[in-house]
Amino acid sequence: MPQLQRLTRRLRQGPWALPAALQLQTLSNLESTSHVGANNNVERALATKATATSSSRESWSVPASVIAAGAALLGSALLVPGHAAAKKELAILPGSKAASSPAAGAASAKPTGASAAAEPAAAKGQAKDDKGRPIYTREEVAKHKTPKDRVWVTYKEGVYDITEFIEMHPGGAAKIMLAAGGSVEPFWGLYQQHKKAEVFAILEPYRIGTLEGGAAAAAAASAALKDPYAGDPPRHPVLIPRTQKPFNGETPGSLLAASPLTPTDVFFVRNHLPVPHVDAEAYRLQVTGEGARSLELSLADLQSRFRKHHVTATIQCSGNRRNEMSRVKPVKGLEWDQGAIGTAVWGGVRLRDVLKAAGLSEDDPSVAHIHFEGLDKDPATGDVYGASIPLSRALSAEYDVLLAYEMNGQPLNADHGAPLRVVVPGVTGARSVKWLGRIVASPSESASHWQQKDYKAFCPSVDWDTVDWGSAPAIQEPPVTSAICEPAPGTVLSAADGEVTLRGYAWSGGGRGIVRVDVSADGGKTWAPARLLPPPPGAPAQGSYTGAWAWSLWEATLPLPAAGSGATSVELVVKAVDASYNNQPDSVAGIWNLRGVVNNAWHRVTLPLEP
Amino acid sequence: MPQLQRLTRRLRQGPWALPAALQLQTLSNLESTSHVGANNNVERALATKATATSSSRESWSVPASVIAAGAALLGSALLVPGHAAAKKELAILPGSKAASSPAAGAASAKPTGASAAAEPAAAKGQAKDDKGRPIYTREEVAKHKTPKDRVWVTYKEGVYDITEFIEMHPGGAAKIMLAAGGSVEPFWGLYQQHKKAEVFAILEPYRIGTLEGGAAAAAAASAALKDPYAGDPPRHPVLIPRTQKPFNGETPGSLLAASPLTPTDVFFVRNHLPVPHVDAEAYRLQVTGEGARSLELSLADLQSRFRKHHVTATIQCSGNRRNEMSRVKPVKGLEWDQGAIGTAVWGGVRLRDVLKAAGLSEDDPSVAHIHFEGLDKDPATGDVYGASIPLSRALSAEYDVLLAYEMNGQPLNADHGAPLRVVVPGVTGARSVKWLGRIVASPSESASHWQQKDYKAFCPSVDWDTVDWGSAPAIQEPPVTSAICEPAPGTVLSAADGEVTLRGYAWSGGGRGIVRVDVSADGGKTWAPARLLPPPPGAPAQGSYTGAWAWSLWEATLPLPAAGSGATSVELVVKAVDASYNNQPDSVAGIWNLRGVVNNAWHRVTLPLEP
Repeated sequence: MPQLQRLTRRLRQGPWALPAALQLQTLSNLESTSHVGANNNVERALATKATATSSSRESWSVPASVIAAGAALLGSALLVPGHAAAKKELAILPGSKAASSPAAGAASAKPTGASAAAEPAAAKGQAKDDKGRPIYTREEVAKHKTPKDRVWVTYKEGVYDITEFIEMHPGGAAKIMLAAGGSVEPFWGLYQQHKKAEVFAILEPYRIGTLEGGAAAAAAASAALKDPYAGDPPRHPVLIPRTQKPFNGETPGSLLAASPLTPTDVFFVRNHLPVPHVDAEAYRLQVTGEGARSLELSLADLQSRFRKHHVTATIQCSGNRRNEMSRVKPVKGLEWDQGAIGTAVWGGVRLRDVLKAAGLSEDDPSVAHIHFEGLDKDPATGDVYGASIPLSRALSAEYDVLLAYEMNGQPLNADHGAPLRVVVPGVTGARSVKWLGRIVASPSESASHWQQKDYKAFCPSVDWDTVDWGSAPAIQEPPVTSAICEPAPGTVLSAADGEVTLRGYAWSGGGRGIVRVDVSADGGKTWAPARLLPPPPGAPAQGSYTGAWAWSLWEATLPLPAAGSGATSVELVVKAVDASYNNQPDSVAGIWNLRGVVNNAWHRVTLPLEP
Repeated sequence: MPQLQRLTRRLRQGPWALPAALQLQTLSNLESTSHVGANNNVERALATKATATSSSRESWSVPASVIAAGAALLGSALLVPGHAAAKKELAILPGSKAASSPAAGAASAKPTGASAAAEPAAAKGQAKDDKGRPIYTREEVAKHKTPKDRVWVTYKEGVYDITEFIEMHPGGAAKIMLAAGGSVEPFWGLYQQHKKAEVFAILEPYRIGTLEGGAAAAAAASAALKDPYAGDPPRHPVLIPRTQKPFNGETPGSLLAASPLTPTDVFFVRNHLPVPHVDAEAYRLQVTGEGARSLELSLADLQSRFRKHHVTATIQCSGNRRNEMSRVKPVKGLEWDQGAIGTAVWGGVRLRDVLKAAGLSEDDPSVAHIHFEGLDKDPATGDVYGASIPLSRALSAEYDVLLAYEMNGQPLNADHGAPLRVVVPGVTGARSVKWLGRIVASPSESASHWQQKDYKAFCPSVDWDTVDWGSAPAIQEPPVTSAICEPAPGTVLSAADGEVTLRGYAWSGGGRGIVRVDVSADGGKTWAPARLLPPPPGAPAQGSYTGAWAWSLWEATLPLPAAGSGATSVELVVKAVDASYNNQPDSVAGIWNLRGVVNNAWHRVTLPLEP
């Protein structure tokens, strides 16, 4: 059933009926918890379900209203195999014009499957609501937890049979099955992208009745599940939030350019899950796996038994500057501007030293990767954040991989991984696992979603239908990048000033120092070298071939078009060169990828020019 | 005297009165021998000269004919400080329109300095030639070897006083002083760019008389200096020569794409100097320097005392694909197309093992670089080719630096460094020194011209007037690159075929494997991933994060515009991505640099399309 497989994959992974902006911010977080682990309850529940529904798949249908909503909001369409009119939509790809056509479906049609499913219940002669829909008790709803029994959920006072929607749930079938037989509200509370009229519009056609006791009963039930983000720490108000739950916030450009070390309070925060609260006294790091003597180390053990090291390193999210990519074509992920990057002095012990203490060796052919497991846990599935790096990097004396308990001279704070985190210098942020719980030596890479199905880039022509996650390596070292932090977007330049001063950062992966930064005030037609500012404390000289884990801040003053030139705007551009003479690509289009990662095109800021 | 310094620098380094094409091919070779060593005879001769000429510098002048010739040929001008009319020319930069104006000088004017200098000799009442010029004996000419005595040279039967030209010699004063008091012909034989009418036009205005015995006497004297390139080995006729002396030849694209290992006979040859003939029996490798126990190792010692290793590695000249760069704006260097690259299995011993045998250690703070000195020698100065790499790379077990005595299973041949060469995998070819004579441990980089003043790149706005060689690091690891080898330029495509198959290579420095190659048949508007061919024998899997020293060959088939589409040409494009997700820049202009090195822009081949 390749068509069905394509459908399922598209519905799981593809853009769907959420406003584009919200989708871009949060879908990755939603998705990110749906691929971990194979032996939990959810998987077992799904196995049952799959058997039960396999015979009904050919009759799957989607409400026309959903098609219309999806098409109008996103320029994409949900697909309806087994439904003649909608079959045409199989050819509609996200972003195609046809998808936004009203022909995609009439907004008022009812889902066949859902109506049919409601009938047996309605026939029992139960009490009816004011619209003639049957009224069900919470206990009756709770009996409908598997596809075999039909899957019911409640939302406020509504009761819904979502059996036919399960496989189409963009967050994956496993996620929506967690609400089976109960209210979806606690889960919608976790994944805020649901709190939109458009999402309710998707649900409503599946309504089969009303909950006894109405909204009040539903609210009481919902309150039983506490908001797992309620314990998140307060954040500095200057951070620009991209999502609140989990919290993801970036540093304003002017603060990045202001100091070679980013103050901890304004350092960007990239959380995939609720912030765990770890008692530093009770904390124990587990070290285990192939070729390792298992260790259990308290923070005091780490601090007393291993030598303390300091490393000045920049950490950047793979999705930094994603918003430029989504201007070319929508991508999935947090809409970062250029502020998902920061530089700190990290203090801690070398991963190498701890691994050696566990008896690990470069020569052990049974070990090739070191996994890091966080203590941050998916409140729905219990899965933890995970990532891995190659053993050669983990054991190298030159790569400076740190188990850090200090950031900028202070103990780690809650948002940055207290009490212990990994810092993998020169490597994309996703591998610097926070709230480190376990280190596992393994012959293979981490199987986590974030290692296998997230932080990777593909050819611009690859979309969510055609992506083969296994065809690309997990991002480890990111490419050379740079950004203009000042002047900020929106600044009005004055030709009378005669010149403009630019400030920003440049950084490359793998410890390749920044050799040169070029700037332009004419969109890249002519260039001048910028002045590299002194390296941050503890960082090697600018342009070092190796070990340059920290960014280079830079500044440059360029002439503006003369007053009377007729120019009404100025396009400022920056590009950097690293010690391997890697350059940045000129434009975003050539490196566009569906996840919007590793955008390192020339950074451009176009500003109005007053006479 | 900053103006004078600028002048001197420009005249030494800048474009001058040679045809652009020839200049691009050979000037770098000429230059490349003029910066080595500080304590040789030439330097001592120059010290004398400098004292003698320092008082006359304010009256330097350049024949107007030279200015005109230079301007007409190259779009540049020689500059004449102290000469009112010519002072204006200071503002004329290479490529500016004013430089090609006839106002730059009348072609028939005589050089003031040269005429004045000739007078004392003419006054002696010597025999005159048929044009009334004095006739000098070879012995008389030989007395004029220093600026104090005036510097005379002969060319065929002509005698020339070149005292005023010395500092303006594009190859440097040291080079031209080697001919002082004798014939320039043996030297012009070494540096073939002189064998042009335009060069003679520069010399002719300095003529002060005629040599006794005429051309025959000059030829006899000239024959005394043997052609140092006469002993160069024969080359495969398929190599495309870029210069003959020294020989530099590249591999045709179709042969590159044909096999993952490049056959030795068609492997590109990049020689800076004549090929030395080394007796393998008598050969001794010297290892010496800071922190090292001096060693002297025969080939048999190396083969018997150290373990043999094989490394499959690509070697690429920093100037590969330079011809694309010179289409944007002229650059200096061999006009390589995409064939200054090749891949071989190298057999030999690890540099690391030899250095360890010499007692070198990572922990020795007195050593930071390992120098390699070739046995190839400048026939004029005696200086040898040299380069260096950081100690950390030299000692690393992971970087696989080899002292190779085999190439593709055979002993090294003469052009590729017999009997022993360095192979620095993942590093630009210039560091893989051939005909290795000495290894020297040092606290600092090699002082050689090729390390300090050649293989470096700068901002596109930096020209030969403004270049600060110290501001950029020597190229070690080159950036990710790729090229289309098939179809070859000039191939006529047929729309009736419906599709076109592309083949080529992709490679990156530092052992970063090729993750992906994207191709386009519409100039880069849309892309498709190419198929990566199996890695060469001995190379790791495609896309490896580390140790991928060899290129990836690839192929792809793309649809052509349909017959009747009206398209008359197709622009094929390739770009590659390495394991650090480095991308190639879209265009050459943004990475243009005066030496034309590390061009890794998208490779484009535009082909005509027949219906």
